Amino acid sequence: MNQPAQIRHALSTKRQDDFAQWYQEVISEAEMAEESGVRGCMVIKPWGYGIWERIQRRMDDRIKAAGVQNCYFPLFIPLSYFAKEADHVEGFAKEMAVVTHHRLIAGENGGLVPDPTAKLEEPLIVRPTSETVIGAAMARWVQSWRDLPLMTNQWANVVRWEMRTRMFLRTSEFLWQEGHTAHADRDDAMEETLRALEMYRDFAETELAMPVVAGEKPENERFPGAVATYSIEAMMQDGKALQAGTSHYLGTGFAQAAGIQYQDKEGAQQYAHTTSWGTSTRMIGGLIMTHGDDDGLRVPPIVAPHQIVVLPMLRDNAEDEALLAYCAELTKSLTGLSAFGEPVRVLLDKRPGKATQKRWAWVKKGVPLVLEIGGRDAANGQVSVLRRDRLWNEAAKANFQALSKDEFVSRAVADLEAVQTALFAEAKDRRDAQIAQVDSFDALAAFFSEDKRYPGWAEVVWSRPTGAELESVVQRLKALKLTIRNTPLGGEPVSGVCVFTGAPAVERIYVARSY
Amino acid sequence: MNQPAQIRHALSTKRQDDFAQWYQEVISEAEMAEESGVRGCMVIKPWGYGIWERIQRRMDDRIKAAGVQNCYFPLFIPLSYFAKEADHVEGFAKEMAVVTHHRLIAGENGGLVPDPTAKLEEPLIVRPTSETVIGAAMARWVQSWRDLPLMTNQWANVVRWEMRTRMFLRTSEFLWQEGHTAHADRDDAMEETLRALEMYRDFAETELAMPVVAGEKPENERFPGAVATYSIEAMMQDGKALQAGTSHYLGTGFAQAAGIQYQDKEGAQQYAHTTSWGTSTRMIGGLIMTHGDDDGLRVPPIVAPHQIVVLPMLRDNAEDEALLAYCAELTKSLTGLSAFGEPVRVLLDKRPGKATQKRWAWVKKGVPLVLEIGGRDAANGQVSVLRRDRLWNEAAKANFQALSKDEFVSRAVADLEAVQTALFAEAKDRRDAQIAQVDSFDALAAFFSEDKRYPGWAEVVWSRPTGAELESVVQRLKALKLTIRNTPLGGEPVSGVCVFTGAPAVERIYVARSY
Repeated sequence: MNQPAQIRHALSTKRQDDFAQWYQEVISEAEMAEESGVRGCMVIKPWGYGIWERIQRRMDDRIKAAGVQNCYFPLFIPLSYFAKEADHVEGFAKEMAVVTHHRLIAGENGGLVPDPTAKLEEPLIVRPTSETVIGAAMARWVQSWRDLPLMTNQWANVVRWEMRTRMFLRTSEFLWQEGHTAHADRDDAMEETLRALEMYRDFAETELAMPVVAGEKPENERFPGAVATYSIEAMMQDGKALQAGTSHYLGTGFAQAAGIQYQDKEGAQQYAHTTSWGTSTRMIGGLIMTHGDDDGLRVPPIVAPHQIVVLPMLRDNAEDEALLAYCAELTKSLTGLSAFGEPVRVLLDKRPGKATQKRWAWVKKGVPLVLEIGGRDAANGQVSVLRRDRLWNEAAKANFQALSKDEFVSRAVADLEAVQTALFAEAKDRRDAQIAQVDSFDALAAFFSEDKRYPGWAEVVWSRPTGAELESVVQRLKALKLTIRNTPLGGEPVSGVCVFTGAPAVERIYVARSY
Repeated sequence: MNQPAQIRHALSTKRQDDFAQWYQEVISEAEMAEESGVRGCMVIKPWGYGIWERIQRRMDDRIKAAGVQNCYFPLFIPLSYFAKEADHVEGFAKEMAVVTHHRLIAGENGGLVPDPTAKLEEPLIVRPTSETVIGAAMARWVQSWRDLPLMTNQWANVVRWEMRTRMFLRTSEFLWQEGHTAHADRDDAMEETLRALEMYRDFAETELAMPVVAGEKPENERFPGAVATYSIEAMMQDGKALQAGTSHYLGTGFAQAAGIQYQDKEGAQQYAHTTSWGTSTRMIGGLIMTHGDDDGLRVPPIVAPHQIVVLPMLRDNAEDEALLAYCAELTKSLTGLSAFGEPVRVLLDKRPGKATQKRWAWVKKGVPLVLEIGGRDAANGQVSVLRRDRLWNEAAKANFQALSKDEFVSRAVADLEAVQTALFAEAKDRRDAQIAQVDSFDALAAFFSEDKRYPGWAEVVWSRPTGAELESVVQRLKALKLTIRNTPLGGEPVSGVCVFTGAPAVERIYVARSY
């Protein structure tokens, strides 16, 4: 329905020319989402939502496999719940949507207005995150050490009133999963925090084919109220970093605020140690900026709503019937296959319209394998295969190849696996090539000098300053529009001196521009 | 974690004594949900949410099979969107949660208050239903007759500020799916309205084993703004009716309000005809009051989070190891089976604790098949099977039977199917026995006289009065705490006179007390 009136076989913007504009154009041309008319909120359209459904299904399987149980908690959180954790409310107060009334009445001008007689005694906050309301439930559920660990997750919408929004990356309302767990001690809670982080790392690299760095955020980037915050950071094609998932060790702060106490084996009352971890529709923005090319989106097969599209080149003549029968049989045999542990998702596109125009629509959407089939192919038992892990125009020459139907069916699963692998390899090579080791602040500034369009990330060693010393580092970086992304886990020991303080370096960090 | 300190093998309330109290006790004892502390909102716990996940998965399969595409639309709806459809906003204004601010600041008393400088120019409504915001999107998406029918669905949370709430049945926030479609003409839209209704009827009876009557609601019970509203009505064990799903033909009213216009084949501009249809977590309340018994919940196998629980009677001695190995092997062979088109869901309950206490916990949760296995069973290659389609105490005698492991594995799927069938048959027999045909208003009043505890439904014929005449009928019924449920579709032609107006009867209706 959103086909342009005239057929276009290229996006109007290339990544090199205007990455931000290209991003918006891909979302629009691939029919993933659009502005809703409600400030800061988007409408997620079938192709975008279909990718989210695939992400949900695969992530939920991993969450359940870890013994975490799904629940559902209220959308509204009483203001007083937030007030109990000072850092937490401080961090979110500036972007909270506040419900103050529960009824409308006719106003003077005849229009409807909030009913003054239906003002809430206590304002309700539309959840920006659910630590406080889930903490209140945990306080009811946890009495004894036998009740621990308590591991819950919910799939929900949350609201953070963002001033500058961008589809999928930063919207006032977004969809996510938030895991919340309670444990007997720090070690067990930290183990869960890192388990969730590793689950996210593996999910990003396996399901999304998006290489990431898993590490700890610096003190100034911690989740409000957290003792330690970890993230996975992905590099977009413009060299900027995208935080694609976070996991927090919350210590006993939220447990004390909510009263999550348990009786230990010796009969003493103890506060639980809690964690929280989340990923959101933001991952789809990361997917676009990791795999999209100048022909639009490319979707990793594991999360593609359709992995294969069968496209008969209908002619509105007598041959169409035989062609459709051939395509239906092909579709049936492909649907019987299994890839990545699930049945292969195949669409037979029988809609009317020019095949070239329909092909371009699927190319822009990034369907991994498009099979074009004309009357002659059907007669000869052949298919023409387009593999969407490279630019369409290249693919048209190099890879738009004729195969016998049986040969294609026998290799379809391997081809899907190959596309998944190729997308990851391409992204990883690009990222690794755009990370530079820099050994002084001047070199850092030079690396990010304006003449370089998409510089990438700088890897530096530092002395892990805290407090005021860290704040001055943050300000110096801010002047260059830079942020500290994270300290990668499991890195080699470092030597040398901190590029910021000159003190002996203790660890490696990544510095970059970011979304 | 919510096990009572002492072992109890009966609920404290029986259905006959206090149905409302029994309902609350089942929800609590089966650990399905609890009050959240946020007014009118509940926490859905793992067992309750697991049932919802099964309902979602199966309903979503049906929705997709009908060619409907999932999208996601904003939680917030500008007040002005509602104002465009007068009846619609009139119907919901009394129960709308209104967002008026997007920031908090410290108030005089030091506490946080909504920031007066962050007041929204236009209040935002937390969606009670999404016709208006989805209509605005459809107006962008529909230009030509080629774009129709346009069929979308979303899984979402909605908020209706209810004054009297009851878990699952009536909560301020609830979870649902809402289908929204646009069509070229009335016939196509009405066909979709009835298709969705039939999907709900078949889902309720097949998946939930809950017999329902599909029919049209009377004029006074229409969805605000609808031209015609259809419902499925189920009878609870206390004889009351529960509306378990609705489907609406909206005419062109919402299309005119939102500007959903298309160019027809002759080139003329036409308004689309729209529909909407929804089912919610309310179905879980219906499931409880349809299948629950004095031992707690009974879950139809198709929607049971665990269809089979394997319960080793651990003794904390040397035999446990062999027993657990036996149970693990049994669990593995059962997990390999397929029932109702999906892998059988089996849980091996290895938790510490008394087997009798653990058994009772699963009985209360309504797991269809519980296998108790002691050391001797393991040695003899046997299992003891409890089928939860009858009262536990009966089942203990009649059906807590010893079988060889191989025999049980070979019949497990048939047993699950038998439980599903038995629950439906029991509910249908009960419902049919509690429907009485009544031929006068006095007889109607007598049928619902106070001395009868759970009277059921009355089936009467009426002349389908409208306007003021209908309103007087509604008031006479209201005096008896009665409502008109619906006019069943596809009934026999009727004769006789209307029990309300004395005019010639034109159709059959059901009259009942309701939730």
